[in-house]
Formats: sequence, structure tokens, C-alpha cells
Amino acid sequence: MFMQSPGEDSYSRNTSGFSQGKMSVVKLEECRERLRTELDNVVDFWLKYSHDNVHGGFFTCIGKDGKVYDELKYVWLQGRQVWMYCRLYRTMDRFHKPEILEAAKAGGAFLRKFARVPGTSSGQWKCAFCLTRDGKAVKIQRTIFSECFYIMAMDELSRVTGDEDMQLEAEEMMKQLIYWVQKDSSGLGRPQLPGDIPINSMAVPMMLLCLVQQLVEGRGQEVVQKYRELGNWCVQQILQHIQRNGTAILENVSPEGSELPGCLGRLQNPGHALEAGWFLLQFSAESGDEELQRTAIDKFVELPYQYGWDKEHGGLFYFLDVDGHCPTQLEWSMKLWWPHCEALIAILMAYSQTKRPELLERFSQVYEYTFSHFPDAKSGEWFGYLTQEGRVALDLKGGPFKGKNIIELDNCQDARAAEKPNYFNKMSDGTQVSVKQMGTVVLAAFDQLQLVQRRPDLVQVEKKTLH
Amino acid sequence: MFMQSPGEDSYSRNTSGFSQGKMSVVKLEECRERLRTELDNVVDFWLKYSHDNVHGGFFTCIGKDGKVYDELKYVWLQGRQVWMYCRLYRTMDRFHKPEILEAAKAGGAFLRKFARVPGTSSGQWKCAFCLTRDGKAVKIQRTIFSECFYIMAMDELSRVTGDEDMQLEAEEMMKQLIYWVQKDSSGLGRPQLPGDIPINSMAVPMMLLCLVQQLVEGRGQEVVQKYRELGNWCVQQILQHIQRNGTAILENVSPEGSELPGCLGRLQNPGHALEAGWFLLQFSAESGDEELQRTAIDKFVELPYQYGWDKEHGGLFYFLDVDGHCPTQLEWSMKLWWPHCEALIAILMAYSQTKRPELLERFSQVYEYTFSHFPDAKSGEWFGYLTQEGRVALDLKGGPFKGKNIIELDNCQDARAAEKPNYFNKMSDGTQVSVKQMGTVVLAAFDQLQLVQRRPDLVQVEKKTLH
Repeated sequence: MFMQSPGEDSYSRNTSGFSQGKMSVVKLEECRERLRTELDNVVDFWLKYSHDNVHGGFFTCIGKDGKVYDELKYVWLQGRQVWMYCRLYRTMDRFHKPEILEAAKAGGAFLRKFARVPGTSSGQWKCAFCLTRDGKAVKIQRTIFSECFYIMAMDELSRVTGDEDMQLEAEEMMKQLIYWVQKDSSGLGRPQLPGDIPINSMAVPMMLLCLVQQLVEGRGQEVVQKYRELGNWCVQQILQHIQRNGTAILENVSPEGSELPGCLGRLQNPGHALEAGWFLLQFSAESGDEELQRTAIDKFVELPYQYGWDKEHGGLFYFLDVDGHCPTQLEWSMKLWWPHCEALIAILMAYSQTKRPELLERFSQVYEYTFSHFPDAKSGEWFGYLTQEGRVALDLKGGPFKGKNIIELDNCQDARAAEKPNYFNKMSDGTQVSVKQMGTVVLAAFDQLQLVQRRPDLVQVEKKTLH
Repeated sequence: MFMQSPGEDSYSRNTSGFSQGKMSVVKLEECRERLRTELDNVVDFWLKYSHDNVHGGFFTCIGKDGKVYDELKYVWLQGRQVWMYCRLYRTMDRFHKPEILEAAKAGGAFLRKFARVPGTSSGQWKCAFCLTRDGKAVKIQRTIFSECFYIMAMDELSRVTGDEDMQLEAEEMMKQLIYWVQKDSSGLGRPQLPGDIPINSMAVPMMLLCLVQQLVEGRGQEVVQKYRELGNWCVQQILQHIQRNGTAILENVSPEGSELPGCLGRLQNPGHALEAGWFLLQFSAESGDEELQRTAIDKFVELPYQYGWDKEHGGLFYFLDVDGHCPTQLEWSMKLWWPHCEALIAILMAYSQTKRPELLERFSQVYEYTFSHFPDAKSGEWFGYLTQEGRVALDLKGGPFKGKNIIELDNCQDARAAEKPNYFNKMSDGTQVSVKQMGTVVLAAFDQLQLVQRRPDLVQVEKKTLH
């Protein structure tokens, strides 16, 4: 969509309603409405097409018109869908409906019954990566991510059902994960090989930090205390990915925080960096750490946006090599839905904390690209995978790695939120921002926008600066 | 490059020197010259850039200008490069040079020293998938393919060095493979899961058939006898992939030859089907099985060419879904170098056996696409990965799965060839066709063309039919 020469302002040439690239109160209200509509449509799509009323759980391989094209059940996406339904039910009035609660509970029951399988080390559980329609394990990954989404589902489900067993189960699995990551990874099932050096891969501390934030949310001091050290450890592990004198975020570093050789060491994943960015912003807001906030914005929001944005065609690259070599991932130049969702949240959160007008401009650029490329106006939901040039490359709505994806920013309707320090409470009007990225398509950066709009003075600054 | 309406003849609109899509003696001679030149250039490229004179073995991650961008050594490609050097040295006069023999021996020594690692079952060896520059194992795949390329390297190396230990080692490893494939796969290291049903995946019998052909070539009746049953078994396993009443080749079927559910069952890989096609043609030629020859051409050459060719942009798709769903592989629509190499060999081999003029026309279509898209005229070697539209998507010359790729058709310079029945000997003029696909880029379908040219009557038929 963008055909931009280096140095030119592509934003001013886009086809959106944003007047000359400037963000206004009216425009923000339009974004909010659009996001609300998208969220409703996406939830409808998954309620309609994804439920398996025979065996339980959710179909996630869903074609462009809602047809199930494969019955395998991918555990990442099962967990995310349970989490999402619970979150919607618990925090947004219009989704506080019995059908959503029942769907979440049914999905949770399927997960509890089938997803856990005996691990290779005695007494340890693993979660399968993939199940047959009737729940038989097909594949187990030698990573921690199926378990992460299992934990998110169980914790959130315990909140809507009041079932303490589920919370306990989430915390037990979490204990297991921490052991694998910090003490001994042999239970994951990888053979120990002399050339297979230990790696600090961004996804691991990022995902663990997300889990810490999930598990402690509104739980009171005892739980907060239990995970405090782990939270700090995750932040330090994430910060190790700032490399090259602060000019690059690298996806894989050594456990001591130095650069690794070869493609692995030079790999960049702008979407992951942006995702880590808003996890850090959330953490800094909760802890009141202003230095961390600055680092998060400069290094994990501004920087990956700058190097990750395709100056020629628009959109964020999937993978890059910091030295400009061609990445070996065949899909490196494709534009995926989720890095754009991460960018929208991260940039808007950064803006809400700093009021830097250029951040709002970045937001509108990503917003414009995202909403003019990913949503399928004809059949609902979003496409997930575009070519570098922005053409739909895969027309599926869900697949092995793409489920329902909602970025949801919930209002402070939870009485417990008042109990914990909240940066946003202080900086605005009692609105608590809690953002989670889910499995597949779409988002409501919606209440984040509401937050901005409740500070018309911020928008005024913006208008004065830019108009 | 091709912008073709359905039903239109894109071939007649191409920009090659083929006059109106018709193949002529002059044109075939041009193809042969081009292939010879490409082969020389590619061999030069790898001799120049890939040798590690410090630790031994070959660099395979090589950028567009010959620069090593990663020092990891992928065992598939180490094995293929050893095989290729030996094959060139042994069968083509202009490559019968000490530097090529020495490079092959050095690569073989590196492989023998480092590639084999203890397996999970006692007394079994696995081969690593990837090694550090100095030979430490980084990763082991839970498949048979590293071992396959190890066998090819050892067998071919034993032929140029006369080292019987190497031949023995190849046969020992082969015995191990057969056990994993036919008796008990637990030594590969996959956990046995209730939903992980057994699969006849095209790659396995195809690769084993290739190994059988490698191991028996010119070895005499005892060895031929030893692998006869396995060869027949491989052929039967490959034929099981003919599905949907003979209208489709499916990549994965059940061990009993029925269609599998879901994406896995519907997956098509036209390049693999074409590759299997010429392995079958070679087998049928050696055994004089005319029915198998017909099946190979109709089902494994014509059919995948028909469904695999992109009518809009030209080139062969990487993956397809037989029911027209979108494949879940992000790279499904990309055009890779190797399916085009497989197609060139398979089609030309089919033509040389049947003289069907339409096959020569197919050949010129694939030839035209291949040579106008993959070679890098500026820096040598070939690009390996194009977008659906034919633009270079990855500009590397070698990577984790792409090394030196040569399709080589050798003349009957081997006295031993006379010992075994040879279909080609009978049908033409004593030229034995022996074709192997290697790791990465380019090819000389060259002697296959020579074969056709030595039968001017065939070309005359062609000319009469088409002109």
C-alpha cells in the first residue's frame, strides 16, 4: 500500500481518514469504534465456528469462510481461547454472558482432561502441543509454551469460576516451568549435546513475565511476594537482549547477555521486541520504575519500530538480520497479523505514559496498515499472513499457530485493582490498563484509546505540536 | 514472468529462444551448452567459497557474493557435497582432478569424525543434523535423513578411494535405517504418543529407493540381491501415494495406503512427486518393468506437473492442498529451485523413454522458467527461493537446507555398467543415465540431452509433430 522513498513521510500519503498524518480527538474516537466493532465480529466468528460440541475443546484450523479444514486441536490455541473467553466475561460488560462462560468452562475441561501428558522425567508433566479431535496427544514440543498457555487458561478460569483447584494447578505447572528454565531443562526432552549451547531466547523470559503478571493480578501480597523475584529476573533477562551499544534488540543472546555467533545471534524479531516492550511497560507501571519505563520505550518500542518497519511496502517484517544478511527463515519478509497487534498496544501504551506526539503518529501509521490489510470485510475475522507487498498469502482464519487474537484493554471494573500500586491510576483517572495478546486475530486497543481520550489535554498537546 | 489466462499457452509467450514453444535440435544443443556452463560455474563457486581449511568440512551458509554468513555445518549438505565431488570426479572427465578428489576426502573425514553420535537406543548410531564449525553436535533430527546423506557420501567415497571400510560403514548404517523404517522407529527418539499415527511419508521410501540405487550401482549380483526386496518394497510404498482414483499424488498416506484425515492427508508436494517419478523411471528402466514406467510417467511426472504448475505466474508451487484449501505452510506458494531441477530431470527422462512430444514441450516450459529465474548472472550460483510472482525472496546461495545442487547425468564411462540390465542401453546407444539430485543449486540435465540428441530420429518425430 505504501510506496515510499527513503526519508519520505509515508504516513502523510496513506489513504486513511487521518488528516495529513495528524492524530485528532475525532480520529481516536473513530479508532475506538472500529476496534469495538472488530472485537465483536471476531468473538462472534469464534463462537459460531470453533466450538466442538461433540468432543469438547475448540477447532482452530478454520478457513476463510468459517469452515473447519482440520480437526487437530492445537494446545496453545485451546489455552488462549479459554483465557480470552474468561477475560472477556470477567472484565467487559457486554461479554458477561452465560454462553461465553460455558464455552470457557467446556474448553477448560477439555484441556484438563487431555492436554497434560506424562513427561520424560518421572513425576513431571508436559503439555502436548497438538491433540486429535477426541484428545489423543499427537505431538509434544521440547519447549515450555504449551505449558504457558495451559497456565494462563487455568488461572483465568479459576477467576471466573472461583475454583481454587485450577489456580493451584496453574501454580504447580508454573513451578515446573521455573524449574525447567532456571534449574534443569532435561525434563523438556532435548538431548544434551556438546554444541547445543545455552541460549537466552527472548520468548522465554517474555512469556514468563506475562505469566507472572497473570498470576499476581489482584491476588494480594502473598502471591505478589511469591513471584516478585521471578518477575525481576525476567526483566533482567529481557534487558540482556539490548545489544550493539543499545542500537539493536537481538532475539537470542547468551545466558550472560553477550552476543551469540551466526544467524542465531544476529536474528531480530521486531514483533517479539515490541511485545516484550509492553510487558516491560506494564511491569514498570506496576513497580513505578521510571528508568525501566524509559528503556522499554526507547529500546523495545521506538527501536524495533524503526528497524522493523518496511520502508518500501509498509508493515513490520517478521524476521531480520542485524547485519543486513538475508535471514534463513523462508517467511522472513512476510507481514503477520500479530506483530502489528503487539505494535499497536506497545505504542499506545508508551504514548499514554509519555505523551510524546511522535508515538501517536507511529500508532496511526501501524493502525492504518493493520486495518487496511488484515481484516476480511467479506467473511469476517482477519487474514493472518501477507506477502511482503501486502497481498494475502494464506487465506485461513485460524491454523496451527493462529487462533482468535484479541488485544484487550480492560477497564478498572475490578475492585481488587485498587489494592495494588498502579501507575496508570496515578497518571490518569483510575483506569487500569491490562493488556493481553491472545491467539489469533484482532484487537481492541479500544480502552487504551479511551484512556487517552479521557486526557483531552494530552491530545491537545498533540494537536498543538502537529497541526 | 508468465501472465497467463487459464487455457492459454504460456509457453508460446515466453521470452526464451525457443521458437513458438517448439523444441528443435538446435535448441537442445543450446540447453546442453547452458547446462554445461552452469555446472562449471556452480562447481567453481563451491570450490572457491565453501571449504573450511582449518577445521575441515564445508561451509554451506553462503551469501549472495560467496561470503560465509554462518559457520554451522549442516550434515545433509556435508554429505551431499562429498557425494557430488566424488560423482563428478568418478564420472566426468573434466572434473577428474586431484583438487576435487582431495576436497571429497577431506569432507568425508570430517563427516566420519564428527557426524555420527550415539543414538538413544543402545548400540545404535544417529547422525547429527547440524555441527559447529569444529564438529560438535548441535542438533539431532528425529528422522532418517542425515543418515541417508551420510550413507550416500560414504558409498560414493568408497568408490573413488577403493576404501572398503567406507562401503561397509555405509551398509551398516543402511541396515540401521531399514530397521528404523520397517521394524521399530523408537531409536529415532520420538516419544510414542497415542494420537501420533504411523504415516507413509513420501520422502522415506523415495529416499530409501535412491539409496538402494546408489548402493547397488555396479556392485555385482550379491549386493543387487541383498537390496532387491527393499527396492521392491520402496516402489510399492511410493505407489501407495497415488490417491483419489489416480487423480492425485498425496504426500502422506497411511501405511496401508489409504488417505489420512486433515491437512496432513491432503498435502501435496509437486517437487517430491516429480522426484519420486524419476527414481521410479530409473528403477523401471533397470528392471525392464514397462507398466511401472507408464505409471511413473502418467502419475508422477505428468500429473504433478499439471497440478503443481502455477498457471498465473509460472513455476512449481512448493505445497498444495488437494481440495484447494490454503496449505498451512507459510511458504506454500514460493518457487524453490529444487522442484524445478527435479522436474527437468523427470520430464527429460520420461521423454527419452517415450518420445512423447508433449513432454519435450513441458521440458522447455520448465527450462525457460528455471533458467530465467534462478541463476544469478552477477555473482554466480543460483538463488534458491522466489516469491510466487518470481521475485528473489532470499538472496543466499546456501543455507541450512540449500547447498550445492547439481543434477548430473553421467555417461556410461563405467565399465561395470555393462554388467547390469540397462533399459537405456537397450533403447538408445549405450549411454547409461544415472541421475542424482544433490543439495543445492544447479544442474546439468546435459547428458540426458546428449542422449536425446544421439537419437535424431526422436527429435525428427518431435519436429514433425510440432512444426
